[in-house]
Amino acid sequence: MTQNKDNNIATYMTVLGVNARKASAVLAAVESQLKNDALHTIADELIRQCELLKAENAKDLDAGKKKGLDAAMLDRLAMTDESIEKMAQGLRQIADLPDPVGEITDLKYMPTGIQVGQMRVPLGVIGIIYESRPNVTADAAALCLKSGNATILRGGSEAIHSNKAVANCIQAGLASVGLPAECVQVVETTDREAVGELLRLKDHVDVIIPRGGKSLIERVSNDSLIPVIKHLDGICHVFIDDDADTDKAISVTFNSKSQRYGTCNTLETLLVAKSRATEILPQLKTVFDKEGVELRGCDQTQAIIDCNAAAEEDWNTEYLAPVLSIKIVDGLDQAISHINQYSSQHTDSIITQDVTKTRRFMREVDSASVMVNASTRFADGFEYGLGAEIGISTDKLHARGPVGLIGLTSLKYVVFGDGHLRS
Amino acid sequence: MTQNKDNNIATYMTVLGVNARKASAVLAAVESQLKNDALHTIADELIRQCELLKAENAKDLDAGKKKGLDAAMLDRLAMTDESIEKMAQGLRQIADLPDPVGEITDLKYMPTGIQVGQMRVPLGVIGIIYESRPNVTADAAALCLKSGNATILRGGSEAIHSNKAVANCIQAGLASVGLPAECVQVVETTDREAVGELLRLKDHVDVIIPRGGKSLIERVSNDSLIPVIKHLDGICHVFIDDDADTDKAISVTFNSKSQRYGTCNTLETLLVAKSRATEILPQLKTVFDKEGVELRGCDQTQAIIDCNAAAEEDWNTEYLAPVLSIKIVDGLDQAISHINQYSSQHTDSIITQDVTKTRRFMREVDSASVMVNASTRFADGFEYGLGAEIGISTDKLHARGPVGLIGLTSLKYVVFGDGHLRS
Repeated sequence: MTQNKDNNIATYMTVLGVNARKASAVLAAVESQLKNDALHTIADELIRQCELLKAENAKDLDAGKKKGLDAAMLDRLAMTDESIEKMAQGLRQIADLPDPVGEITDLKYMPTGIQVGQMRVPLGVIGIIYESRPNVTADAAALCLKSGNATILRGGSEAIHSNKAVANCIQAGLASVGLPAECVQVVETTDREAVGELLRLKDHVDVIIPRGGKSLIERVSNDSLIPVIKHLDGICHVFIDDDADTDKAISVTFNSKSQRYGTCNTLETLLVAKSRATEILPQLKTVFDKEGVELRGCDQTQAIIDCNAAAEEDWNTEYLAPVLSIKIVDGLDQAISHINQYSSQHTDSIITQDVTKTRRFMREVDSASVMVNASTRFADGFEYGLGAEIGISTDKLHARGPVGLIGLTSLKYVVFGDGHLRS
Repeated sequence: MTQNKDNNIATYMTVLGVNARKASAVLAAVESQLKNDALHTIADELIRQCELLKAENAKDLDAGKKKGLDAAMLDRLAMTDESIEKMAQGLRQIADLPDPVGEITDLKYMPTGIQVGQMRVPLGVIGIIYESRPNVTADAAALCLKSGNATILRGGSEAIHSNKAVANCIQAGLASVGLPAECVQVVETTDREAVGELLRLKDHVDVIIPRGGKSLIERVSNDSLIPVIKHLDGICHVFIDDDADTDKAISVTFNSKSQRYGTCNTLETLLVAKSRATEILPQLKTVFDKEGVELRGCDQTQAIIDCNAAAEEDWNTEYLAPVLSIKIVDGLDQAISHINQYSSQHTDSIITQDVTKTRRFMREVDSASVMVNASTRFADGFEYGLGAEIGISTDKLHARGPVGLIGLTSLKYVVFGDGHLRS
């Protein structure tokens, strides 16, 4: 019986994969205008189907309440007039972005007379595995569509009715401009085995993007036979150097921590050069106390300000909460080595007026975003001018940091000859 | 007992990984000049130790003969004065290439006033798993060194003495310029379990590059917990279009197949537009018959020229031999769909004088190298101006086609502010 069920799911997922591959060949070759028309039509459709979307979403919310989901989860799951309007706006913004596909760069004559360049092309088929936010269905599908990729979307089971309803709007929009509905497919079973099958479809799917908590992402990376673009945690640092400007040190630290607590680019550990600790820490304590931020310091920090003790595990913790760990370091060398040991390689910033130390920090800190005198909260696709992002990669291969349309493409070589032979 | 042995190997490999990670931090930050000095010093050392290298290589050759390795394998394994000289020359050429590390591109002011750009950085630690050619030890180590990456090299057990001897020269060269010996480490056990352990070192190794036969590469991709840059097979196509120039069609097809048989960019399947088959196939048969190339044709081909029959599996076969499969197609559409179905996405070329068909072929064929009127044999790092290559990737993520120094690096974001806060 289980065997049979698993076979059915394997077959179902393979069919999705084969269909996605076919659709991706169409999508890779169409003009930008058609993709943009599709995005605008989908946006119109979402607005038109607003009542239906809310009715389907209500089924998920009811089931979620019965299942005992907490308020924060129900809040993320809920679709409102406003959130549907925002979803539609997001699609229109993606339609307005320049299309990266087909651009040929570095086309040069080689000594043999052939011309060699690189053309930007879609990755092909992208599998996206995410948790309960139904807006991801529209966002992710739109970014993939614009970059010429077919998508297979596997959302959380709590959002299944909402996701199917959004998918119907997307497929109606695709159909109305003559694109295959299989450009965007939502996995319609909530069986967990479907995720396992998706991760094994290496002949049909080119890349997997998981979006969600750390345990989801770890499971996906460990089980996938397909390359994964992933974002693990954001243990971000600010280092206040000996040569920091005091005002910048305090304002950037405060903004990095308290502008928003739940985001991956939020500051979690502050490093302070010993020579500046006595001057700066009491001022920081004042501003953080006002905001109710709990400070956890190393021994030296506790000798200067009244705060809780930081344990070893604090240096490894992404709080996503009004908590900040603080460590006093001897100087730049110790700061860099602490960061390269404990950082999740997401975003780290130095506060200094010294150009020599800037040069070293930028080169030696091995993180996706490395900053000077700027808030870690800037690490974001919109702030970096990418227009939109599908996530922030903490991987090193292919794409590091915020991943926009370019991160969903690759480069192939193009060679133009005129009967050229290799000798 | 086995448990104990495996534990020992796991510990041994973990130590290599930890040491490589430490060395990579040093290597990522050093000036180009020091890396170039190291490469020249290693080249000098290889020449100086020529007799010792040949003596160690003789041990491998003796063992190989006893083990019954065939002549081709023994030939690949052998080190001679000439091959050692060539190895040293290769290192000097890599020293002469521009250093990609540290280059900052696209540094732009954003509306908020921060400057955002991307810096090219090493990947970190690269694990290379290869078969019996000892020259790979020097080549791969040199490309990784120049691009600022530490390497762990796991060569075939048949070449263990040769590889250790080459590694000693490399480490002597590193030491003489003050770089850590752990920048380049050779796995000194021939136990097969070492490969499995290497593929699990995801905290210490950033990417795995397998070089060798298809079975090695499949095993590595299936087992690795670390991202893999891989080159599977090269099932390359030439398509002779309705609008092909006859002379170019014949000379490019002949060069693509017969300039060398054993390489991955060698033509394996020829597609011919129906309208040109009667004219062109007999001429091709004449030139291929002279070279002793076996032709295997589809039914329609067999109706025009005398040749063997191609079976379905021929379209999926990388011959690496003087064999060519030939299929007659209706025209461009069928050619593109045959290629996208059967090609290994390595290299495919169209022969045509028609710009419209060129435009479609370049956009719609989903391969790492797509060519017009040029021999598939040009798909090569040297011919593309990369200076050297560590392999040719048939993957879509990160690097497609010939992988040179750039393919061994990644881009991180750099952000310069002056106390900028996110609002």
